[in-house]
Amino acid sequence: MIEVAVFGAGRIGKIHAGNVARHPEAKLRYVVDVHEPSAKELAGKHGATVASVDEALNDPAVGAVVIGSSTDTHADLIQRAAAAGKAIFCEKPVDLDVERARACQAAVEKAGVVCMIAFQRRFDPTFSSLKKRLDDGEIGTPEVLVVTSRDPGAPPVNYIKSSGGVFKDMLIHDFDIFRWVLGDVAVSVHAAGSCLTDPAIEGAGDIDTTAVTIRTKSGKLCQINTSRRAAYGYDQRFEVLGSKGMLQAGNVTPTQVVSHTATNIAHDLPEHFFLERYREAYAAEIAHFFDALAAGTPVRTTIADGIKALELAEAAARSWREGQAVQVNI
Amino acid sequence: MIEVAVFGAGRIGKIHAGNVARHPEAKLRYVVDVHEPSAKELAGKHGATVASVDEALNDPAVGAVVIGSSTDTHADLIQRAAAAGKAIFCEKPVDLDVERARACQAAVEKAGVVCMIAFQRRFDPTFSSLKKRLDDGEIGTPEVLVVTSRDPGAPPVNYIKSSGGVFKDMLIHDFDIFRWVLGDVAVSVHAAGSCLTDPAIEGAGDIDTTAVTIRTKSGKLCQINTSRRAAYGYDQRFEVLGSKGMLQAGNVTPTQVVSHTATNIAHDLPEHFFLERYREAYAAEIAHFFDALAAGTPVRTTIADGIKALELAEAAARSWREGQAVQVNI
Amino acid sequence: MIEVAVFGAGRIGKIHAGNVARHPEAKLRYVVDVHEPSAKELAGKHGATVASVDEALNDPAVGAVVIGSSTDTHADLIQRAAAAGKAIFCEKPVDLDVERARACQAAVEKAGVVCMIAFQRRFDPTFSSLKKRLDDGEIGTPEVLVVTSRDPGAPPVNYIKSSGGVFKDMLIHDFDIFRWVLGDVAVSVHAAGSCLTDPAIEGAGDIDTTAVTIRTKSGKLCQINTSRRAAYGYDQRFEVLGSKGMLQAGNVTPTQVVSHTATNIAHDLPEHFFLERYREAYAAEIAHFFDALAAGTPVRTTIADGIKALELAEAAARSWREGQAVQVNI
Amino acid sequence: MIEVAVFGAGRIGKIHAGNVARHPEAKLRYVVDVHEPSAKELAGKHGATVASVDEALNDPAVGAVVIGSSTDTHADLIQRAAAAGKAIFCEKPVDLDVERARACQAAVEKAGVVCMIAFQRRFDPTFSSLKKRLDDGEIGTPEVLVVTSRDPGAPPVNYIKSSGGVFKDMLIHDFDIFRWVLGDVAVSVHAAGSCLTDPAIEGAGDIDTTAVTIRTKSGKLCQINTSRRAAYGYDQRFEVLGSKGMLQAGNVTPTQVVSHTATNIAHDLPEHFFLERYREAYAAEIAHFFDALAAGTPVRTTIADGIKALELAEAAARSWREGQAVQVNI
Repeated sequence: MIEVAVFGAGRIGKIHAGNVARHPEAKLRYVVDVHEPSAKELAGKHGATVASVDEALNDPAVGAVVIGSSTDTHADLIQRAAAAGKAIFCEKPVDLDVERARACQAAVEKAGVVCMIAFQRRFDPTFSSLKKRLDDGEIGTPEVLVVTSRDPGAPPVNYIKSSGGVFKDMLIHDFDIFRWVLGDVAVSVHAAGSCLTDPAIEGAGDIDTTAVTIRTKSGKLCQINTSRRAAYGYDQRFEVLGSKGMLQAGNVTPTQVVSHTATNIAHDLPEHFFLERYREAYAAEIAHFFDALAAGTPVRTTIADGIKALELAEAAARSWREGQAVQVNI
Repeated sequence: MIEVAVFGAGRIGKIHAGNVARHPEAKLRYVVDVHEPSAKELAGKHGATVASVDEALNDPAVGAVVIGSSTDTHADLIQRAAAAGKAIFCEKPVDLDVERARACQAAVEKAGVVCMIAFQRRFDPTFSSLKKRLDDGEIGTPEVLVVTSRDPGAPPVNYIKSSGGVFKDMLIHDFDIFRWVLGDVAVSVHAAGSCLTDPAIEGAGDIDTTAVTIRTKSGKLCQINTSRRAAYGYDQRFEVLGSKGMLQAGNVTPTQVVSHTATNIAHDLPEHFFLERYREAYAAEIAHFFDALAAGTPVRTTIADGIKALELAEAAARSWREGQAVQVNI
Repeated sequence: MIEVAVFGAGRIGKIHAGNVARHPEAKLRYVVDVHEPSAKELAGKHGATVASVDEALNDPAVGAVVIGSSTDTHADLIQRAAAAGKAIFCEKPVDLDVERARACQAAVEKAGVVCMIAFQRRFDPTFSSLKKRLDDGEIGTPEVLVVTSRDPGAPPVNYIKSSGGVFKDMLIHDFDIFRWVLGDVAVSVHAAGSCLTDPAIEGAGDIDTTAVTIRTKSGKLCQINTSRRAAYGYDQRFEVLGSKGMLQAGNVTPTQVVSHTATNIAHDLPEHFFLERYREAYAAEIAHFFDALAAGTPVRTTIADGIKALELAEAAARSWREGQAVQVNI
Repeated sequence: MIEVAVFGAGRIGKIHAGNVARHPEAKLRYVVDVHEPSAKELAGKHGATVASVDEALNDPAVGAVVIGSSTDTHADLIQRAAAAGKAIFCEKPVDLDVERARACQAAVEKAGVVCMIAFQRRFDPTFSSLKKRLDDGEIGTPEVLVVTSRDPGAPPVNYIKSSGGVFKDMLIHDFDIFRWVLGDVAVSVHAAGSCLTDPAIEGAGDIDTTAVTIRTKSGKLCQINTSRRAAYGYDQRFEVLGSKGMLQAGNVTPTQVVSHTATNIAHDLPEHFFLERYREAYAAEIAHFFDALAAGTPVRTTIADGIKALELAEAAARSWREGQAVQVNI
């Protein structure tokens, strides 16, 4: 049984806290949040205690921390938790600044602690089943990956301003999917982008619609298309063409009801957004973290993965700004 | 908070116990099972205590019982729990004998306790969404219901011998779907049947494949086809034709992976059997029971529903034996 | 090259004439219709000549006739064409009266001419592919057949009055599907029915909604559900459960466009009615007829098939009237 | 009625000849092919005459020519047919050399003849239905287009050597789809590519797998991914994201049979290759050509469209060779 401190009592912190509380090998001891009412409410719900960062990290009973607070706190918390010898589960990104993320990596390595970066999509039942079948050779050698990744709507412009831009904020997940699915090194990145949904996003120096192409060392090709707006909900699909076929990961719907009326044959819209779509994935990644800690086995998504995804995001952002492909080795 | 005794630590008992334990308004206090190791293991898992039927029913702290033990114990436990003033959640069927089931109903009414019979399919997300849309008038007046209900494989013949026959054991759920979806009174029942999958089932006096037709007072028609064997897994679909369209409830699959190979385009098989297919429904029906108790509102599936489904099963069995339609008023 | 007379220049006659004209082994010589303008227009379109029945049958150059005139003319034309030694392609039904149909069969046999009854569904690409895969053993032994057969709307009541009733007019196709797919002898037929879409149909002594169950000698079960009204169009599906799986024949849509909007994910409605849905089947059955004539091989749907389907329709009608299952050997 | 000469009696020439022969406003008079036996066979099948190019073009009775001969003959035939005052229907591409294609355009304009370039995909029922719904505003303003275009297998390397390269030979259709669907001017083109299926293709200086991104004047984004090999057949899909939703064009399958076995739920593979997939489109484009001639209305795909698609192909090829995005105004 590992005692756990959760940092962040917001949307994602609540989900992580619930999953920690349900895991048989974990015990939620502390909830930490600068907004005390949120911390109190979440702690109360799970029989945990509100604490400060110091109290949580100084308590030798705490074996692991789950970092779900705002992005700008990640690096500091990782470094302090590493120094305190705690196992670390941290939301992406490590930090918006790659250098600072690398400093975190160094701290983690120096301390010799486990640090898992939460790329929850790898734990989604559909995505992980596809990956397993791909690895089992069902479609031969993978050659082309097409990723479609669209949010139902854009976040507030204030959020966008401090988000690090669409490539680091939104596509970072897709870059991780690219690395995970194709398992190859990127040698060239090209990104086109536009602001089509809201001029305020352009005003914030960002874009809402992107088209990225990555070529790998062995010549595999990856195309990613994203938008901050899909009227029909959260669109999370990818497909892999291999030498012997194709595997597609489709959207998930709340129900399997189909209606036939004089108008059309109608199916459910996809699960509305990430909290619903990745509900099982969030539980599975937390379970993986604590199972790995208990078994002493490596975690599947490390801080190195977090840094590679960031590097790809930076390359894409540069390509978009310069209007040219960027040569990389990521 | 209601304290609960769960009767039965088998397959379905474990599921109910887990859902009780997770419900914020319920507290699992006792597990009762004639097989003590099973009771101990299940109680241990949820911090509950092993008890005898008497101990559980005599404890005034216990407000509700969940009956998931073998069918032949249901009637006795319902009557004793009713006498003890406990709220009752009981697996279907009430009893294989309609008269005995009616005696249970009388006992429940006399005691004035809540008694919910577990027709979990009504709580399935797909089925309940369809029903809501039907009630909202999406396809006008319902006219025809077609139910397909197939198990992946037959239970052991020993089970079949004491099951009450396929109509009471298997189709009872489908009869409840008929009553729930069409919301009308059956006036005629015709059942054809065959033993096609295993002669041992015929040896036990039963059949494995059925085709039932029900006509209602207002002329609505219902067809049910069932089999004890579907090589592709658990097949649980129905569709309603209405004056303005059709609503279909399709099978649920573990993932949304689709493969394209030189052979075909392949989708997942449906969830294998009822424990997987109705996982969410089992949680939802328990939640409904405790929510209703907490709110003092009626439960959605009562002992009267359990008896009506039994009566339809008896009528179908008679029709099958006699090779003729049976006039009813159920 | 076989010269052909087409009887009937209405909706179905036009389709047959066009398919005859396009077939490399056939030459459309005569069009015969009591309504001369229709005959003229159709003949003109294909470079054929308008003729009377006698002229067409007396012309020794004519090798085959295609009968697409009204139902009440079929028997007479079959008998006269047989006497004239012509190969015969005739729309279903042979006649509404089984005895008269048998007389036609006798005439055909006596004359030794080919007589094909047009059950075009057997020639539909989807249905015939399913049948071939079934025969190839893909799902083992067939056990259960479920047929869904719904028209977009009812024909005029005047048509219904002289149609012979829903079982002979509409379900005759479904009875042929039953015979073709299961390949077994019916021993019991039960039919329930209601008039739900239009009281005028009841006024005409008919029903618009049916639920039929057939049991075969070897215990196979077939359920057919039909309606004269499906708001979403022409619904023509069936599925076969076998010992090793299931084969389903789905509806055909005009396009493969799928829309995702804020409302739903929407697919095309099925092809609207039989002229569209079975367009390819109509061409294929005519092609089969002339190919068989050219090759001297048997036709796939004979007058015997036409009579068996009629007998099943009569049994179903009797079961519906009497409210009881009917024992047969068809 | 227009008399027609068809140039080319190969695979595509046969299809065009058949469609000409079936069109009520057209009469197939001549078939021209350097391979005389092919010309004879095709002419014989449709009651036409074998002729030389000169004979066909010098016959004043000929009103239109259909050019389906090899690519290197297109430009010469277009120019000669234009000079002879014939209406022209020509397979893509106009020519592999853009300058020569422009000379053809000049010749056509000077002669004032109709010249339709055969982008048959625009006439596919699924694609044209999608386009109509897009134009009708069903998903608001289009923003992103994703095109997937994969052949079942590569053509012989000898063909590839003289094909002009994958961008002119294969993607030219996809570039036309881009122009047609988004209706906007391309301002930047980026193409990545690899040879992954057969080293002999690389030996011929070509690639077999591409990933193209186009950005338009108004910021719309288009991604195209193509491969010369899809083990599962011909994959021809595209989807458009708009401000109010998404429209997808899916693959077409030969039948609607679905099998459920112990292995999976299996659907048909898509139509195997272009002759099957675009069978209806080939008929529709020929029909459109002759209907437009008869009505004196403009054709939908002009020689200007052919040249724009070529220009995009050249830009993509240059981008691929240089590894950089190319600025254009096409």
